[in-house]
Amino acid sequence: MAERVAVLGAAGYAGAVASALLHRHPHFELACVTARSDAGVRLDEVHPRTRVPLRLEEYDPDRHAEVDAAVVAYPHGASAPVVEELCARGVRVVDLSADFRLRDRATYEDWYGAHAAPSLVGSAVYGLPELHREEIAGAHLVANPGCYPTAAILALAPLARAGLLGDVVIDAKSGVSGAGREPTHSKHFVSVDETVTPYKVGRHRHTPEIEQELGGGVRVTFTPHLVPIAHGELVSCYVTPRTVAEGERDEGASRPAGEGDLDVRALYEAYDDEPWVEVVEGPPGMLEVRETNFCRISVHADERTGRIIVFATIDNLWKGTSSQAVQNLNLMFGRDESEGL
Amino acid sequence: MAERVAVLGAAGYAGAVASALLHRHPHFELACVTARSDAGVRLDEVHPRTRVPLRLEEYDPDRHAEVDAAVVAYPHGASAPVVEELCARGVRVVDLSADFRLRDRATYEDWYGAHAAPSLVGSAVYGLPELHREEIAGAHLVANPGCYPTAAILALAPLARAGLLGDVVIDAKSGVSGAGREPTHSKHFVSVDETVTPYKVGRHRHTPEIEQELGGGVRVTFTPHLVPIAHGELVSCYVTPRTVAEGERDEGASRPAGEGDLDVRALYEAYDDEPWVEVVEGPPGMLEVRETNFCRISVHADERTGRIIVFATIDNLWKGTSSQAVQNLNLMFGRDESEGL
Amino acid sequence: MAERVAVLGAAGYAGAVASALLHRHPHFELACVTARSDAGVRLDEVHPRTRVPLRLEEYDPDRHAEVDAAVVAYPHGASAPVVEELCARGVRVVDLSADFRLRDRATYEDWYGAHAAPSLVGSAVYGLPELHREEIAGAHLVANPGCYPTAAILALAPLARAGLLGDVVIDAKSGVSGAGREPTHSKHFVSVDETVTPYKVGRHRHTPEIEQELGGGVRVTFTPHLVPIAHGELVSCYVTPRTVAEGERDEGASRPAGEGDLDVRALYEAYDDEPWVEVVEGPPGMLEVRETNFCRISVHADERTGRIIVFATIDNLWKGTSSQAVQNLNLMFGRDESEGL
Amino acid sequence: MAERVAVLGAAGYAGAVASALLHRHPHFELACVTARSDAGVRLDEVHPRTRVPLRLEEYDPDRHAEVDAAVVAYPHGASAPVVEELCARGVRVVDLSADFRLRDRATYEDWYGAHAAPSLVGSAVYGLPELHREEIAGAHLVANPGCYPTAAILALAPLARAGLLGDVVIDAKSGVSGAGREPTHSKHFVSVDETVTPYKVGRHRHTPEIEQELGGGVRVTFTPHLVPIAHGELVSCYVTPRTVAEGERDEGASRPAGEGDLDVRALYEAYDDEPWVEVVEGPPGMLEVRETNFCRISVHADERTGRIIVFATIDNLWKGTSSQAVQNLNLMFGRDESEGL
Repeated sequence: MAERVAVLGAAGYAGAVASALLHRHPHFELACVTARSDAGVRLDEVHPRTRVPLRLEEYDPDRHAEVDAAVVAYPHGASAPVVEELCARGVRVVDLSADFRLRDRATYEDWYGAHAAPSLVGSAVYGLPELHREEIAGAHLVANPGCYPTAAILALAPLARAGLLGDVVIDAKSGVSGAGREPTHSKHFVSVDETVTPYKVGRHRHTPEIEQELGGGVRVTFTPHLVPIAHGELVSCYVTPRTVAEGERDEGASRPAGEGDLDVRALYEAYDDEPWVEVVEGPPGMLEVRETNFCRISVHADERTGRIIVFATIDNLWKGTSSQAVQNLNLMFGRDESEGL
Repeated sequence: MAERVAVLGAAGYAGAVASALLHRHPHFELACVTARSDAGVRLDEVHPRTRVPLRLEEYDPDRHAEVDAAVVAYPHGASAPVVEELCARGVRVVDLSADFRLRDRATYEDWYGAHAAPSLVGSAVYGLPELHREEIAGAHLVANPGCYPTAAILALAPLARAGLLGDVVIDAKSGVSGAGREPTHSKHFVSVDETVTPYKVGRHRHTPEIEQELGGGVRVTFTPHLVPIAHGELVSCYVTPRTVAEGERDEGASRPAGEGDLDVRALYEAYDDEPWVEVVEGPPGMLEVRETNFCRISVHADERTGRIIVFATIDNLWKGTSSQAVQNLNLMFGRDESEGL
Repeated sequence: MAERVAVLGAAGYAGAVASALLHRHPHFELACVTARSDAGVRLDEVHPRTRVPLRLEEYDPDRHAEVDAAVVAYPHGASAPVVEELCARGVRVVDLSADFRLRDRATYEDWYGAHAAPSLVGSAVYGLPELHREEIAGAHLVANPGCYPTAAILALAPLARAGLLGDVVIDAKSGVSGAGREPTHSKHFVSVDETVTPYKVGRHRHTPEIEQELGGGVRVTFTPHLVPIAHGELVSCYVTPRTVAEGERDEGASRPAGEGDLDVRALYEAYDDEPWVEVVEGPPGMLEVRETNFCRISVHADERTGRIIVFATIDNLWKGTSSQAVQNLNLMFGRDESEGL
Repeated sequence: MAERVAVLGAAGYAGAVASALLHRHPHFELACVTARSDAGVRLDEVHPRTRVPLRLEEYDPDRHAEVDAAVVAYPHGASAPVVEELCARGVRVVDLSADFRLRDRATYEDWYGAHAAPSLVGSAVYGLPELHREEIAGAHLVANPGCYPTAAILALAPLARAGLLGDVVIDAKSGVSGAGREPTHSKHFVSVDETVTPYKVGRHRHTPEIEQELGGGVRVTFTPHLVPIAHGELVSCYVTPRTVAEGERDEGASRPAGEGDLDVRALYEAYDDEPWVEVVEGPPGMLEVRETNFCRISVHADERTGRIIVFATIDNLWKGTSSQAVQNLNLMFGRDESEGL
């Protein structure tokens, strides 16, 4: 029998994609969709592409928490209390916000301020199936990763596991949907068209999440850029391998490159059996992953400088958010991880 | 009296912009425009926006070298022999190709292959007025910088002078006009739209030029990306300061940031009197420099990691190529550097 | 048992989409993909988004005609002889070219020149399921409509049936993929970005096809425009109703508008049961139909002038070409028309 | 001596362009810039591309009306009372709003509601220099045309003068800046990118202005479309010539086309001496007019249907608004019409 799933905050971009995926999912049943601002309107009127004919309702726990699972697409801070309530009622939750991604409360509060449901901090599983598949399967609360962390962690995890992450610079390029649906000057077509804009330089809140999952105490410089694209995300990761960073920097250029090259690429064979990760030779374009759950990765050795360069692309609203949420739901309910994707 | 200037290779994007600027220049006279493929056609038919009614002619040194100066907009390799011939006839040349930018012939041949006019190597002035204004004034042959080097060198020169360039990663984003006018699959609208594509990873030929001008033996990792934009270029430069790179890396994060912050920004006051460099607080957008000779720079200190992040934007066809060529011509002929710009 | 289907000309945009749809179709089996220029390469290397791992082969009738059906994605003129050969071997064909769309040979030759397989002219069914569902079901040769005609005919058929088509102006806007994959100056990103370009004014070859299917001797003025979009198509159709056109023009403005309004919209209820036509109130956006088989239509009465304005959008490569081809194949083989779409 | 000019409403797109043009104008002096929402901020901070270092001030007639002229860039309705006040103080005004464009008050009120300064209705000159150059020269109040009317009227005026305007359909495509700077859902990048959206179908307020200036009682169907472009506008005008419309429609197709063709093009020689109108053979692209005061026109005869098709492009913020305002100011103060453009 189909598990019934609610999508809370379905009028935003992420909630709409999650709703569309669940609506046409072969097993889950999209039970209800909620939204504050557009309550009363049908979701397919706000987001026709979803073709979900359900009416958006204002969230009411007594009516909308009578489900098996919920995808919560609220802004960080707003999410925690609702998630707490849902968990208390036994609803299994995939939370798209940042509220439960950081296991360390102090780190959370450094970047986000006071936490609204501190007792739950540390109780969620970080919902990146390629890293935490087993824990997700049994989880009641999954903290869905941010879009940038999804791409960056998948790009760098094989190097992290090999202890190679010395110095890391991540230069990310993201389509505008990643900034949400609320109209602002910075998302006005005329502000975005024909330009590239770095933002939140040195202080983007996805940074601690990336550092937590890569582990090893690595500090990353993470700089996102807005590009004139609707959906899609590319992270360009520049890694100075630890052995080089630690005192051998100057000889980096003369290191036998072929060897290093070979080793590095072999690390990515770890993804050979992953259904949603593609390691490719050429540049990993955004169109190749658009509206899919794929993450596409390519690895390069810069022999002159000894650096490793890794690129990864995802659709920020799919693998970066909502199709990954469905991948997590599949795992949580013992289904094939790829169903409905 | 007006100096007469020829533009060779005027049917390409760079040659067309140079022609348009010289055609409406208050002092120079655009004497002739040449092109192989479109010979016989008027330039304003090939590039209406130039509004230059001159007919493109096939280059003939006996007719087109009877000028005071020439802008040569040929591909690298093709440029050297023509430049040699023009110089021999006493024509002053701004060469837009890479043929005379590198002072070290071995470095040139590492990146480009055999040089077609080796006797001239090292005799050109590198045409970045903000660094070499005085030499340009007396020069007979100016090697106009590449578009990426223009932005990257202006972004990093104040740090280089201060001896701060430890480790450097340059992640560049460029509009498609930078790749030239020849139709190819990679410049087809459908290939470029809604995606970002890294290219020539670890082997873009602008790399040695950047390293030469920054000096100090610095090795940069330079990665250009194609973005769905016609004109414009952003370089995002990530610098690990030398003092930090040399043994103090781990303490980087705890370095007093305010102090470092102050020092770094002060270095950019070197540009205070530069007419075409704007140091700004916010992100340096491409629209702000489009079809201008401006380079726009912003500097950030990433206090967590101790890195300095510098962004710079230019219009790749203007300050990155053709308006800079006119700036150089102005200097070469003793005019105000900003005339006609 | 699965029918085996070949896609000929699979390296172009349309052939690639057809291949992808057939590859993941629940019933058809994609037997082989052919292409001249990219023979030997895997389709998913040329078009990664298809994720079709088959190798492109040069077409050889003795090997590739051993199938139940073929989708032929050749240019007009090149298609006819191959289609003739396939038909002779008993292969059922959906031809994406224009070669068999016009039932009148003289009209074909007026617009396209001599026909390469004149004996087959008139023997194909025009593959617009919403108009010719029954004939398609039994057809051996289906001439798949052009992309503009698909949208224009669906937009205007209800008015045509009601005898209302007096004067018709169709102003179409199309994404660049409609112009094919071959790189040209006019498809260079820099030529398309930030502009709209009318082309083939008064002489686009989709015109006679539209007139044939609307019938009644109507003459349409059809003007396509290239817009800076990869996929998608909008037709804006301006109809002066026949009764008004015939002598009552001047009173047009004073005609009771409410009445006309009501009548006109009621005509579009003819689409109520069509699975792939959506008649909507608001503007029928391209994103709503992108990578779907939907055609989305909205109808407006301009009360001041008495005109009827109809908008329709499709994805030019899907309902405009390749998903419609699959819809036709489904019908030809007695399957549910929407399978695999 | 330089006349002093104020720009009221300088924080919007149109006001910013007008300010930039006046700031660098060889004769006018930009005396002050006003804005409500951004008062206190420098204009070059809100719109860096203007490079106007003046601070925006809240409008105060006692301080800002001490000028020779004003450009008023207010929304319609808000403009009239301020214009009335400025006129009363002897300030010469170019009003960018619609408030004084329609000479017939009843028509104004049909489309816009009650007029806020009815005594001035009919006293303004319609500021299209190519039609009203002489009246503009002596005018105290110039109503600057809308962007669509500028392109449409210039496209059609030669046909109107020849009495050829039977039936007229105008299908317009506009960049997003035409919709103003206020952030809304419909101007969000994600709403505009990769789609074309018709809007205000049958009820765009530029319609009566077009009809007024073309005269002869013509009724036009005017439909604007939003395209994913920042600046620029194309009108595609479909004209059924009057002689054909009046009873000869059916023979239209057999009319000697060469003859008609010749005649029609000859009508556009009326623009031969116009400095800012270019009649061209090929499609009149938007890039060719971007950030210029040019209107670019091409004329086609559709011989099959007897229709005349005229395309015109302008930059909606330049010739469509602010550079045209400067052209008008030049004329009003007896200067060369092209100064500073």
